[in-house]
Amino acid sequence: MYRLDEDTIINEQDLENWRRTHYSFQINPSQINQTIIIMGWISSKRDHGNVLFIQLRDKFGDTQVVVKKKGNNLENEIFDVLKNLKEHSSIGIKGKVVEQKKSSTSVEIVPEEIKVLSVSTKSAPFLTQAISNIGIDTRLELRALDLRRDYLQNIFKIRFTILNSIREFLISNYFIEVHTPKMIATATEGGAALFPIFYYDKEAFLAQSPQLYKEQLTMAFENVFEIAPIFRAEPSRTNRHLSEAISIDVEKAFVNYHDVMKLLDELVAYIILKIKEKNQTELNNLELELPDIQIPFPRYSYSELVDKLQKNHKYIRWGDDISPKILKDIVGDSFYYIVDWPLSTKPFYVKPKNYSDIIGLPPNSTTTTTTTTTISNENQKDKESESNRIVSESFDLMYGTLELSSGSTRLNNKNILLDNMKKKGLNHAAFDYHLRVFDYGVPPHAGFGLGLERFIMALLKIENIRDATFYPRDIDRLTP
Amino acid sequence: MYRLDEDTIINEQDLENWRRTHYSFQINPSQINQTIIIMGWISSKRDHGNVLFIQLRDKFGDTQVVVKKKGNNLENEIFDVLKNLKEHSSIGIKGKVVEQKKSSTSVEIVPEEIKVLSVSTKSAPFLTQAISNIGIDTRLELRALDLRRDYLQNIFKIRFTILNSIREFLISNYFIEVHTPKMIATATEGGAALFPIFYYDKEAFLAQSPQLYKEQLTMAFENVFEIAPIFRAEPSRTNRHLSEAISIDVEKAFVNYHDVMKLLDELVAYIILKIKEKNQTELNNLELELPDIQIPFPRYSYSELVDKLQKNHKYIRWGDDISPKILKDIVGDSFYYIVDWPLSTKPFYVKPKNYSDIIGLPPNSTTTTTTTTTISNENQKDKESESNRIVSESFDLMYGTLELSSGSTRLNNKNILLDNMKKKGLNHAAFDYHLRVFDYGVPPHAGFGLGLERFIMALLKIENIRDATFYPRDIDRLTP
Repeated sequence: MYRLDEDTIINEQDLENWRRTHYSFQINPSQINQTIIIMGWISSKRDHGNVLFIQLRDKFGDTQVVVKKKGNNLENEIFDVLKNLKEHSSIGIKGKVVEQKKSSTSVEIVPEEIKVLSVSTKSAPFLTQAISNIGIDTRLELRALDLRRDYLQNIFKIRFTILNSIREFLISNYFIEVHTPKMIATATEGGAALFPIFYYDKEAFLAQSPQLYKEQLTMAFENVFEIAPIFRAEPSRTNRHLSEAISIDVEKAFVNYHDVMKLLDELVAYIILKIKEKNQTELNNLELELPDIQIPFPRYSYSELVDKLQKNHKYIRWGDDISPKILKDIVGDSFYYIVDWPLSTKPFYVKPKNYSDIIGLPPNSTTTTTTTTTISNENQKDKESESNRIVSESFDLMYGTLELSSGSTRLNNKNILLDNMKKKGLNHAAFDYHLRVFDYGVPPHAGFGLGLERFIMALLKIENIRDATFYPRDIDRLTP
Repeated sequence: MYRLDEDTIINEQDLENWRRTHYSFQINPSQINQTIIIMGWISSKRDHGNVLFIQLRDKFGDTQVVVKKKGNNLENEIFDVLKNLKEHSSIGIKGKVVEQKKSSTSVEIVPEEIKVLSVSTKSAPFLTQAISNIGIDTRLELRALDLRRDYLQNIFKIRFTILNSIREFLISNYFIEVHTPKMIATATEGGAALFPIFYYDKEAFLAQSPQLYKEQLTMAFENVFEIAPIFRAEPSRTNRHLSEAISIDVEKAFVNYHDVMKLLDELVAYIILKIKEKNQTELNNLELELPDIQIPFPRYSYSELVDKLQKNHKYIRWGDDISPKILKDIVGDSFYYIVDWPLSTKPFYVKPKNYSDIIGLPPNSTTTTTTTTTISNENQKDKESESNRIVSESFDLMYGTLELSSGSTRLNNKNILLDNMKKKGLNHAAFDYHLRVFDYGVPPHAGFGLGLERFIMALLKIENIRDATFYPRDIDRLTP
């Protein structure tokens, strides 16, 4: 029982044996004169004195309900209840489908019985139709309500298409979905940015990536992917970082980084195709047109990009990371790769380019040694100018200044992995559980991780990455 | 370069421009006399002196490779390398497809060139063909290698079908996939069995369930599901508990527990249908026949089950939990529900049965009040004998003595939720971030969580739940 004001008492009722007979999209003139049951929440209300128009929203859209006061007692009672209910309240309506030319569905519902299922006792601090101008913290404090907004509904419907199309694409390419542990004993890449946990009586961490596990699993399943949360104790307050994000992790045996870049090209193209196919309505609502992409996406070597930046009078030395800020003036809003990063910037498991030369393996006796890369000329130039510049078989997929994905060919020789760990100052004993499977012949493999929220942010031009996830986590926010 | 013993040196080679042209399942007599490239690992080797038979395994199966010593120098060299490679080593073979009536594919491969991609330097401590008799700890210490075993390959292929069919089923029933945060500020159900984490400068926990978030999300999306890890600091050492597990969480608006039980019935039936359709080979390998199930699964009320247990001279009082041990003699290996659990055994968000009577809401004025349940008679009897026995709209899906899923109708009225929290001794201020959205009319809803590993364990008759997951976590195990 709710006392909305001194004169208005509205009782919440039990669902009991009422069930929705039609979703909004299933209602059409073929049902005229039939009695149906609809359920949803009041998305808007227009009060014309003796006539009340209500839009009842379900997960597919609105249905128009019309109630008139001049009628019998029962109708008056329904009128009074609906008139006093605030927006967002949930109700069930048993009513007759009648013709209404002005309605988008050509019909509307005249209620015969109603059930008040959930009363909104407060007025929402923002409108469902509002697109911007609401502080994100105000919205996040009432995130479930915020997610009712049209803008976010469109975003999250497209997010769903993205997830489904990623799975479709990878499964059709003979990948199997795996789940790797999120509670781990050792940091993948040396310990930065990890959340510590109490694991019974042991110290442990939340996984910042499924890297080592997905690599191991290529041994048993060859092509694996995982779509799961990753955790990074990211100290910065930006619009493009989350402490908990969904990572699309892909790893494939018997290939190198060129193969998985091609796979990523095709994956992105497939996602965009599927969104255009399934979410034209949402794209229109968002006034968005997805880019007409051409694959393969352009590939720029790290070295040529550094040259270009230097020529543009940006301060960067070969070996530095490339910050978004420094890239800003020289890239447009489109997809491209930065390939062949300095080996020194990469984790211990990344394979150097020209592997055989560098590690002193005897030349291959049974095959030709030409490797095909689109950027070998530029790269060659850099290496000539500075002979100790060792690059890696690695790439970042970028969209403008936003890094979406990072990938590489991985090392699969235990001794070289051990050597690298020593060079990077890692305690290799702590990685024994990982290294020991390399005694049994881990196949050559390559892979990438794609940040789901980053990708959504780029594709749908979302200002703040927090709106690409349901309940964002950052240095300041742990609730809701 | 690997020195396998005093006389044998085998070099690992780079993949370079070699790529697999055919998976094992794509090789057939139509390619006779063609040269193809296959890649994989040596699953077995038979040495007949001057003839060597090798089974090269890829993710789909084995391909027979035959090498003879009497030949030219090149052939002899290939012979020597293959002869000296241990099982599990990864290789690429460029070779000719030739007829071989005795082979299952009617062909075999005669190598012309090989590439040693990864050398197994040790002998595996267990056979790929072994089914049991290997200590699980020995296997888990080399899990990636263990996962190459035929037994686990079959299990994990079926696991993949289960995941895919769950998504197919739920998506076709208008569900949307969501991701809720795993780092949370408050325990869902009061604090037991949580892993604490350091969240920047705050105390936080790993989510033991997405319960409150999925409930909130029914507000914006009506029908939601999540497939994600849950974390429980389970102190017991058993074959049926994991510290990190995958939970299939489902929540639906405008329905009650009977509706979601029906949904769960249909979900299980759909999964079994799909496994039979897609994994007949794996079922045969496992010598398993899936049960011919009939839905709806039987529903036994908690009260009638307690009666029955008491008549069977088991020690249990009404209000106690029902342990697997106590159930053992009275249930067979099949699916069934235990419904209408005592409200006192359930968390604060579970709805009591006969809600209106109990919380003193005025009777509904516009609808009939009959609720339909299949177990109302038995239940009535219990309530007559002890009038203060309040039961809840809840269920557990069981398979024999194994609990697979737990679900209920949830409360959606803020005041009653607050009351319940007080009764349970919970600090309701800590749940403010959750309760505040109930000011805006959260619809009635019901749902369940289904433990993926438990379900796999039941269906595939796996002895230890650790074999239903890739890298198990328990009180003793944090690696690999």
